[in-house]
Amino acid sequence: MARSPRCAAGRRLQLPLLCLFLQGATTILFAVFVRYDQETDAALWHWGNHSNADNEFYLRYPSFQDVHAMVFVGFGFLMAFLQRYGFSSLGFTFLLASFALQWSTLVQGFFHSFHSGCIHVGVESMINADFCAGAVLISFGAILGKTGPAQLLLMALLEVVLFGINEFVLLSLLGVKDAGGSMTIHMFGAYFGLAVSRVLYRPQLEKSKHRQGSVYHSDLFAMIGTIFLWIFWPSFNSAPTMLGDGQHRTALNTYYSLTASTLSTFALSALVGGDGRLDMVHIQNAALAGGVVVGTSAEMMLTPFGALVAGFLAGTVSTLGYKFFTPVLESKFKVQDTCGVHNLHGMPGVLGALLGVLVAGLATHEAYGDGLESVFPLMAEGKRSATSQAMYQFFGMFVTLMFASVGGSLGGFLLRLSFLGSPPDSQCYEDQIYWKVPGEHEDEAQGALRVEEPDTQA
Amino acid sequence: MARSPRCAAGRRLQLPLLCLFLQGATTILFAVFVRYDQETDAALWHWGNHSNADNEFYLRYPSFQDVHAMVFVGFGFLMAFLQRYGFSSLGFTFLLASFALQWSTLVQGFFHSFHSGCIHVGVESMINADFCAGAVLISFGAILGKTGPAQLLLMALLEVVLFGINEFVLLSLLGVKDAGGSMTIHMFGAYFGLAVSRVLYRPQLEKSKHRQGSVYHSDLFAMIGTIFLWIFWPSFNSAPTMLGDGQHRTALNTYYSLTASTLSTFALSALVGGDGRLDMVHIQNAALAGGVVVGTSAEMMLTPFGALVAGFLAGTVSTLGYKFFTPVLESKFKVQDTCGVHNLHGMPGVLGALLGVLVAGLATHEAYGDGLESVFPLMAEGKRSATSQAMYQFFGMFVTLMFASVGGSLGGFLLRLSFLGSPPDSQCYEDQIYWKVPGEHEDEAQGALRVEEPDTQA
Amino acid sequence: MARSPRCAAGRRLQLPLLCLFLQGATTILFAVFVRYDQETDAALWHWGNHSNADNEFYLRYPSFQDVHAMVFVGFGFLMAFLQRYGFSSLGFTFLLASFALQWSTLVQGFFHSFHSGCIHVGVESMINADFCAGAVLISFGAILGKTGPAQLLLMALLEVVLFGINEFVLLSLLGVKDAGGSMTIHMFGAYFGLAVSRVLYRPQLEKSKHRQGSVYHSDLFAMIGTIFLWIFWPSFNSAPTMLGDGQHRTALNTYYSLTASTLSTFALSALVGGDGRLDMVHIQNAALAGGVVVGTSAEMMLTPFGALVAGFLAGTVSTLGYKFFTPVLESKFKVQDTCGVHNLHGMPGVLGALLGVLVAGLATHEAYGDGLESVFPLMAEGKRSATSQAMYQFFGMFVTLMFASVGGSLGGFLLRLSFLGSPPDSQCYEDQIYWKVPGEHEDEAQGALRVEEPDTQA
Repeated sequence: MARSPRCAAGRRLQLPLLCLFLQGATTILFAVFVRYDQETDAALWHWGNHSNADNEFYLRYPSFQDVHAMVFVGFGFLMAFLQRYGFSSLGFTFLLASFALQWSTLVQGFFHSFHSGCIHVGVESMINADFCAGAVLISFGAILGKTGPAQLLLMALLEVVLFGINEFVLLSLLGVKDAGGSMTIHMFGAYFGLAVSRVLYRPQLEKSKHRQGSVYHSDLFAMIGTIFLWIFWPSFNSAPTMLGDGQHRTALNTYYSLTASTLSTFALSALVGGDGRLDMVHIQNAALAGGVVVGTSAEMMLTPFGALVAGFLAGTVSTLGYKFFTPVLESKFKVQDTCGVHNLHGMPGVLGALLGVLVAGLATHEAYGDGLESVFPLMAEGKRSATSQAMYQFFGMFVTLMFASVGGSLGGFLLRLSFLGSPPDSQCYEDQIYWKVPGEHEDEAQGALRVEEPDTQA
Repeated sequence: MARSPRCAAGRRLQLPLLCLFLQGATTILFAVFVRYDQETDAALWHWGNHSNADNEFYLRYPSFQDVHAMVFVGFGFLMAFLQRYGFSSLGFTFLLASFALQWSTLVQGFFHSFHSGCIHVGVESMINADFCAGAVLISFGAILGKTGPAQLLLMALLEVVLFGINEFVLLSLLGVKDAGGSMTIHMFGAYFGLAVSRVLYRPQLEKSKHRQGSVYHSDLFAMIGTIFLWIFWPSFNSAPTMLGDGQHRTALNTYYSLTASTLSTFALSALVGGDGRLDMVHIQNAALAGGVVVGTSAEMMLTPFGALVAGFLAGTVSTLGYKFFTPVLESKFKVQDTCGVHNLHGMPGVLGALLGVLVAGLATHEAYGDGLESVFPLMAEGKRSATSQAMYQFFGMFVTLMFASVGGSLGGFLLRLSFLGSPPDSQCYEDQIYWKVPGEHEDEAQGALRVEEPDTQA
Repeated sequence: MARSPRCAAGRRLQLPLLCLFLQGATTILFAVFVRYDQETDAALWHWGNHSNADNEFYLRYPSFQDVHAMVFVGFGFLMAFLQRYGFSSLGFTFLLASFALQWSTLVQGFFHSFHSGCIHVGVESMINADFCAGAVLISFGAILGKTGPAQLLLMALLEVVLFGINEFVLLSLLGVKDAGGSMTIHMFGAYFGLAVSRVLYRPQLEKSKHRQGSVYHSDLFAMIGTIFLWIFWPSFNSAPTMLGDGQHRTALNTYYSLTASTLSTFALSALVGGDGRLDMVHIQNAALAGGVVVGTSAEMMLTPFGALVAGFLAGTVSTLGYKFFTPVLESKFKVQDTCGVHNLHGMPGVLGALLGVLVAGLATHEAYGDGLESVFPLMAEGKRSATSQAMYQFFGMFVTLMFASVGGSLGGFLLRLSFLGSPPDSQCYEDQIYWKVPGEHEDEAQGALRVEEPDTQA
C-alpha cells in the first residue's frame, strides 16, 4: 500500500526538522547553563596569579586533538568499509558526533561540573564529550546500514543521557576507576548498540547481502580509520587521567598493548582462515582490541609485561569472536552486528573491566608510593582496601551492562516508532536512500532507486 | 593553427624554470635576511636564563602541526573531489603551499619581525606562513581546474604580498583583532580568488562539464580533507592568539561553532534537496563554515551560546549559498567558483567579520577583567572604547574586500598573459595535461589525450 | 613437482606460529627486563618533588604522536601505491612495525637505558622504538611485493638488532650527532633493504610487471602517506633532540628544507619527463627528500638558508635518481628497489650525512654560545675540535654503510631459506596470496588464484 504524498513529504522533513529542533534545544540550554570555566574565562583566569603556561590547555589539548581525530576520522573511516555506504558512514558519524558533543556537554556538565547553577566548560569537558560521542558511534556500528539518520539522532538523544548517568554512577558514586573507558565507553556503547540491534532484528536482511561486504578500495578507506584509531589510542586512554606520571604511564601501557594485539590478530586471522590467508575484517578491527582492553587498567601499575599479555589476549578473543561468535550472535541471539562491535568493544571491554578488577586488587602502597593518591584516592585515604576497590570495579561492570542493555532495548523500541521510517530490508547498506550519489555506476544506481521507491512507500 | 615546436618546448620549460627561479630567489633572500629568533638560536636562547620548557615551541608547536595538517591534508584532499583532477588538486596544493610558506616567511617577516635588518623566524612565523598559504589555497579553490601550475605560482607570488600588506594594515595599523582570520584569511582568500576567476571567465566552460562532478570514491577522498579541516579548526583559530585563557577559549568556541554548523548543514541540505536527500557538496564544505565564522570572534568572550548561534547561521548561509547563489554567481556575475569558496569562505568570512564587530562592540571591562589587556590591548590602555574598536573592525572588513578584489583582478590579468598557457575549455578539470596518469582507464585516457593535443596547440 | 599436503599445511602455519613465537619471546623478555622509568612509575615520580607539568611527557609526547603517525600512516599509505598490493602494504607495515616496536624497545633499551639489570621505558623509548620501526619499513620498501610476511618478520628480527648496534656505535661510542637519523635511520634502512633485495634478485620479475604500477586511486591513497610524512617530518627530526632551542630549531630547519625539496622535485620532474608532464612517483617520494637530508644537521646551526639549499639539492638528486638511477640499479647492480628507497632514503641520507660533516666542521663557540653544550657536548667540554667532530661524523657514515650492507646481505640469505616460501615471480605485488580479497574484480581475482596455485606448489 502506497503512502499518501503528505506522508512522503513528512518523511522528507523529518531529518531537517529534527536537526533544527535539537540544535535549537541545545542552543537554548547552552544560553541558560553553559559558562566558561576558570581556565577559559578572560576575567577569571587573569584574576588568579597564573603563568599562562600553567593553563590546563597546554597539558591536555594535544591529547584532546588526538581523541577528536579518533572520533571523526577513526570511527568514520573504519565504518566506511561497506561498498555502497561510505557517504552514510562518514556523514552520519559527522552528524551524530556533532550532536552528541553538544548534548553530552550538557548532560555530563550537569553531573560533573555544575556549580552555582551553571555548567563550566573547558578542555576537560571537550575530552569528556568526545568520549561520549565515541560510545554513541560504537552503538552506531552495531546497527550500521539498517537505520536512517533521524533514528540515529534519537538514539543519540537517549544514549547520551544514559551514558552520563552510568558514568556518574561508576566514577562518582562507586569510585570506580575507568580512565580509558573499557566499561563506560566500550562496554556501554557496544551492549547499548547490540540491544538496539536486537530489538530491530531483521529476519529478511539477507535481501541486502550483496551490499554487506567491502570492495578493494573501501577496505583501504577503512584502513585509514583503523590506523588513526591505532596510533592515537594511547592519547585516548591517557587524555582524562591524572597529570604527570599517570598520563605518561597510561599512554605507554596502551602503546604496548596495541602492538601485542596486532601480532595476535595476525596470528589468529591466518590460523582460522583455513587457507592461511589473512582477513581484512580482523586486521581492521581486532588489532585495535589492545586499546580497549587496557582502558581501565592502563593508568594503574599494569607493567609493560601486563600490557603485552592483555593486548595479546584481546586480539585473540576479538579475532575468534569475528570468526566464530558473530554468526552465532545472529543465528541464536538474533543480534545483527554490522561492524562486529561485540568483538571489538564488547568482549575486549569485559576483559578490560576484569583486568581492572585484577590490577586494582593487586595494588599496594609499595608499588604506587605517593602516587596512590592519584590513582586510587580512596585507598590512599584509607577508606578502601585493594580488595574492596576490586569489588567496586567488578560491580561497576554489572551496572554498566545493566544500563547498556536496558537502555539499548528502550532505544530499540523508540527507533521502531513507525513514523521514523527505517530503510527496507532490500535497501540496507545503501547510500542512495539518503544521499545524492554521483553517477559512477549510473545504471546500477538507477536500478537501485527504482527498486527502492515502492519499498520505502510500502 | 599549430604552434611552432619552439613554443611547445618553451611551454614545457615554463613550470620547471619558474620553480627554479622562485626557489633561487627565496634562497638568496633567506641568505640575506632570515635569521633564527631568540627561541631557535643556540647562542641567544642559552644567553638568557630560561628553563628549556619555557621555550615557546612547547606552547605553540602542537597547534602549528594541526594547522600544517589542515593546509596540506585538509585543503589538498577537500579539492580532490573532482573525478579526474585528484593529482592536480593534491599536487598543486603541495607546490603552491610550499612556495607560499617560503615567500610569506619573507613578506610577513618584513612586516612583523624585521629587526636590525633581519627577519627572525620561529614557531610563530611558521604558523603565520601556513595561514598565508591557507589563503592562497582558498583562492586556488575558486579557479581549481582552470589554470596551470605556472599560473598558480604567479598568482601566489602576487597574493602573498597583498596578503602581507592587508594583514599588516589590519592588525598593526588599524589594531583590528582577527586571530583566526575571518577577514585576513577567509575573506581575503575568497574574494581574491573570485576576482581572479572573474577575469578568467570562460563562457565555454560547459565543454568540460562531464569532468566537473565527483565520483563515489573521489567524494570519499574529499571527506578526508573535510574531516581533517573540521577536527583541527579549533587549533587553527587558536594557534596565534595570546597564550593561556585566550588560546583555550578560542579552541573551545570554535569547537562548539563547528558542531552547530554541522547540524544546520545537514538540516538545510536535506531541506533544499527537493527529495529529502543529502548532498555531499554541502556536507564536505558548509559543515566547515562554523570554523570560518568565529575566526575573528572566537578569542573574544563570545560565550559558548554565541558560538552555537554563529555556527548555526554559518552552516545555513553556506548551504543556501551552494544551492542558490553559486548558479547566480556564474550566470549573473560571470564568476565560476569551482569549489564554492564564496559559500565556504566568502560569505561566512563576512558574517564572521560582522560578528567580530558585534562582539568587540559589546566588550566590557567587567566581562574581560584583567584579560582585556590580552584581547583588546588598546581598550585596556584606554586608547579606544568598545564602540570605536567595533568601528575599526568594521572598517577592516572593507579594507580587506578592497585589497582582495583589486588584487585579485590584477592577479587575473597577470594570469591571462598569453604565454602562460591555460588549459583549453575542453580540457579543464583534467589531470592528463599536467600529469602522467597511470593507465587505469587506458582507452579513455588516450582518447582524452588525442582530443587534447590539437586543443592545446590551437 | 607438487609439494606434499603436509608441506602446504606447514606453510599455512608459518606466519601464525612465527607471530606467536615472537610475541611470546618479547613478552617473556619484557617480564624479566622492562620496567617503568622515573617519569612513568607512580612511586618513583611522586618520590621526587616535581610538578606534574614537569613530566617529560608534556615536552615530547606531541612529537611522539607525529612520529607514530608517520610510521603507520605515512609509510603504510606511501607503499599502497601498487594497484593490487594495498592490503599487504598497509597490513604488513602494521605487523612489522608492531613487532619492531616491541623488539627494539628491548634491543635499544639494552644499549641505552639498561640500569641495575632493567630496561627503563617512557616517552623517549617510545620515540626511539618508532625510529627503529621506521628503518625497518624503509628496508621493507626496497623488497615490497617480493617477500611474504614471515620473511619480513625474520628480516625485522635481524635488522632491529643491527640497527641498535649501529646506533650505539655511532651515538654512544663515536659521539656522532644524528638526531633525525640521516645515517642511523635512512641510510641504514635503505642500504640494509637494498642489500636484502640484491641477494633476493629475481631475474624473471617482469612476469609481474603488469602489477608493478599504480592505478589512479592507488596513487591518491599513496598521497595520504606522502602528505602525512611531509607535514610531520619536522616532528620526526626534532623528537629526540635536546629540549628548548634544539627541538625548536630542528623543526624549523626541517620545515624549510621540505618546502625547497618540493619545489625542486616539481621542477626536475617536469624537466626530465620529456613532455613537460609531472610524474606522481617523483612527487610522492622525492618531495620528501628534504626531510631526510637535514636529519643529521637540522639540530645544528644550519641556518634557514642552509636548510633551503639542502632541501633543494635533495629533491633534485632524488628525482634524478628515480628517473636515471633506478633502472641502472636493476640492470647493472641487480638490485630491484620497488619503492625507490635508494632515491628517497639512500642518496639523500648520504647527502645528509655529508651535510652533517660540513655543518659540524663549521661549528664555532661564537655561533652556538652556551648552546654548544647541548648540540656538541664533547666540543663544549674541550674534548674535540669542530674538525675532529666532523671527522667522526664522516666515519659514522662508513660504519653505517658497513653495518647496513653486511647486515642486509646476511638478512637476504636468511630470507632465502627455502622453507620460507617467497611468492613466485608471477605472483609478486599481489595481495591474493596473503589476503582474502573482496570480489570487486571477481573474474580477475579467480584467474589470478588459478594461476597461482601451481606456482606456489611447484
